[in-house]
Formats: sequence, structure tokens, C-alpha cells
Amino acid sequence: MQNYKMVLCYDGGRYDGWQKQGNTENTIQARLEAILTEIAGVETEVFGSGRTDAGTHAMGQTANFRMDWKGTEAELLSAIQRRMPEDMGVLSLEKADPRFHARLSAKAKTYVYTIWLGEMPPVFWRKYSFWCPKGLDLEAMERAASVFLGSHDFKSFCANKRMKKSTVRTIYEIEMRREGHALRIRYTGNGFLYQMVRILTGTLIEVGEGKKDPGEMEGILAALDREKAGFTAPAKGLLLEKVYYEDWRKGEEGP
Amino acid sequence: MQNYKMVLCYDGGRYDGWQKQGNTENTIQARLEAILTEIAGVETEVFGSGRTDAGTHAMGQTANFRMDWKGTEAELLSAIQRRMPEDMGVLSLEKADPRFHARLSAKAKTYVYTIWLGEMPPVFWRKYSFWCPKGLDLEAMERAASVFLGSHDFKSFCANKRMKKSTVRTIYEIEMRREGHALRIRYTGNGFLYQMVRILTGTLIEVGEGKKDPGEMEGILAALDREKAGFTAPAKGLLLEKVYYEDWRKGEEGP
Repeated sequence: MQNYKMVLCYDGGRYDGWQKQGNTENTIQARLEAILTEIAGVETEVFGSGRTDAGTHAMGQTANFRMDWKGTEAELLSAIQRRMPEDMGVLSLEKADPRFHARLSAKAKTYVYTIWLGEMPPVFWRKYSFWCPKGLDLEAMERAASVFLGSHDFKSFCANKRMKKSTVRTIYEIEMRREGHALRIRYTGNGFLYQMVRILTGTLIEVGEGKKDPGEMEGILAALDREKAGFTAPAKGLLLEKVYYEDWRKGEEGP
Repeated sequence: MQNYKMVLCYDGGRYDGWQKQGNTENTIQARLEAILTEIAGVETEVFGSGRTDAGTHAMGQTANFRMDWKGTEAELLSAIQRRMPEDMGVLSLEKADPRFHARLSAKAKTYVYTIWLGEMPPVFWRKYSFWCPKGLDLEAMERAASVFLGSHDFKSFCANKRMKKSTVRTIYEIEMRREGHALRIRYTGNGFLYQMVRILTGTLIEVGEGKKDPGEMEGILAALDREKAGFTAPAKGLLLEKVYYEDWRKGEEGP
């Protein structure tokens, strides 16, 4: 059977996250598998680059699946898109090497967290941002963020306290950009632990509010204790922007 | 009682439009009046710059109301905002001249219509744009739009066939701008008839699809017949961007 790679977008607002769980059909993965199974006529599994939490959005989630399909890739893409609800989309679909696996082959990912800094609530962005009406000290947040760059044990930023595998990850870049009332924090790294981006963001927000000092970040990392880090920023502000299957930045230091 | 002017934004998706009608409480006006009445302790009316259709959005709808309020304007704004659902917001509030009336004092308005030109459906813009996947001839649309500039009898572009008042309006500017997959058509004029912007947009889309020729626009205007113009583009793509109470463009030809 041919292996296919597809890039997906979805508004996570209505879903219980990416991963199939027990008896809920309300996950992105379950919806996709139902669509692919209908097209193929046989049970078809889909492998995502990783889970996204309930309520988290994606512009570049990547997944692979195997199928016997007689038509072209464009026809297959169209057959999938036609069956999708309006809050899900296929951005591209191509044949992939038999060994390609959306999760195991991923070299890096970029997540974007959107914070709304306007005094008034974000009427049009209410489902895609977290509102911090009191303002944030962005300069202090930048200093705190710089501490997270590079390879560290991020156990303090992992929501899974029983994580048995390595909690060491490498963050290549954290870019903070103000666009109007929106502050976008863009994290690129070789991988992220369960809720790591949301906990990093919650910690940076606490720094921005003056509740934590940038100087405390090293100690929080060293503690290897979830309790030391900040709160978990809400899922709706988070977007999986891109999954990289080659060096995330050609010509520069990559994974 | 003091007259107040306020600028509002709302996501129109959940509402039956601006204007109170019979027994539905599900209009922007009814929601606002309920909030103002609760604050004032007496029945309080609110006057909008004009109706927006069910499903149409606003970033700069303007309204006025009269109230005895002992506090500051900032406190009143905050009292209103606190009571609003998350899909409505107050952008500003100020004291106004006793004669100020949001509709009668308005000199010009800007509406923006968003068309999505991507091959794939607009997952994140699905509630704020109209999808034209087959592409549009933007150059032909520009030529057709230029015919509507200036003062004309727009009866062919008015959904109210029994309109007894004048159907002459002046359009100062129609600006078409492509931003990624979005095409934004921005209309500024001294006033717009019932569904006029949506019918103008539907007509321009038909030109873009090759179903109508830019050369037909003069005849459509001259016919004074709604049947000659194009379809009514869906409400969800439309946004009331701004209401002007002075010349819309200082130093240039204004209303």
C-alpha cells in the first residue's frame, strides 16, 4: 500500500484534541480515520506528528496513512476535503517514502501562542487568543524566554508527572512579535513535552505580570518540578504552525 | 440627560442583526438596550448608525443613548463592557452634543467585504468570508467597480423593492486589496441602501466569474431593477468597519 503524507489545518475549538481516546469519536484523528476508511473501504489508520490538546488549533499538522488508491494525489486530496467538516482542511497531500512516519520522522516543530493585550476583550480573536488586559512587561518576558533556548531537561514544564522517557528537549528559537493588540510567541524546537508550550507561555505571562522574575527561570528548570513553573496557558491560544522533516533552517544551526 | 456616543464591535454570527424586531431579543440593539436599562434603572433606548443584517459583523458600529450617570465615561464604558457577551465589545464611549444622533449625524460609512480565493476552504475564516474557489478576474472586477463610483440611483442594488425614499447614494471609493488568500473590497459612501453592499459584491463576483461583463454595469444601474443586478453575497463576509461624523477624508473631496 502507498504511504501518503498530508498537511492539515483545523480549528480545534469543537474537538477533544488530536488523539483517539476510549469511546469518544470527537477527536481530529477519529474524524480523519472515519473519512479515510470510507474512501478506502477498509479500516485505515492515520499517524499524526503528535497530539494537540483539546481546543488547540493547527495550520500545519502533518499526518501519514497507507492506502490503495487508483487515482491521482489531487483526486485523493479532493475526496478527503469533500468529506471534511468546515472546521478542518487538507492543505497538501503527497506520496511519501514507505518509511515516512509523521511522528518518528519529524525533526522540528513550530508552535505559536497568541496573547491579546488590548484593554478591551478580543471579540473576533476570542477563540484564538488568551486575553491579558493588564499589559505585560515584554522586555522581561524576552529575557526569561532566552533562558529556555538550547537543550535543557524541561521536566518542570511537562504536565505528565509520570513521564518515563527523556524530558530533554532543544528549543531553537523563541520569537516574540507584537502585531496590533496581539502578542505572538513562536516556539521552534526539536519536540515538545505534554503541554510544554502552554506551561512555558503561562510562565512567561507570570514574568510579564511581575509575579516571577526572569532570574528565576534557571532555578525553575533545575528544579525538575512542575510545581515551580507557571500556570498552563489556555489551549485556545495555541496553534501548531508547522512540522519540519528536514533541518528547520537550512544553512543555519539545525537539529 | 446626557447624550453618549459609543463605538461598538460585534461578531454578528449569533445574532438576528442590529434592529429590534417584534418578539426576538436576539438582536444587537435588544442586547444593548437590556444592558443600558439595567445600568440606568430606567428603560433606555439606543440608536445605531444603521441596521446590519443578521450575520453581518461590525468593527466600528456607532450608537448613541441618553443616560443620567454620575460616574466618568471610563466607568460607564466598563459597566457596559462587563455585562456584554464575549462576541460584543465597546471600543470607545464619550459624551456627545445633545443633537448628536448616530444615524442622522452620520456623513459616511465604510463596509468591507471579504472573499476567500484559496483553492481550499477558509477553515479559520469560514465565518468571516465568502469562498470563491474557482478564482476571479480581479481586473474585470476593478473595471466594473469603477462604474459605481460617484452619485447614482442604486435602486437596482436595493433589496427593499417598496423603498419610497430616494435611492440615490454617493460612493466615494471602492478599494480592492488582495491579502494572501483574502480579497477585501472596501466600500466608502455617504450611505448604503438595504443590502446594497452585498448586492454590489454579488454583482462584482459575477463579473469576476465571467458571468457578467464590466460593460453591463451602466445598464444595470439605469434599469432601476433589482432583478438585473447580481446575487446577494452572504452576510457573513460583510463587516461595518467605520462610521464617519466628519468628512471621511479631510483635505480631499468629501461628502
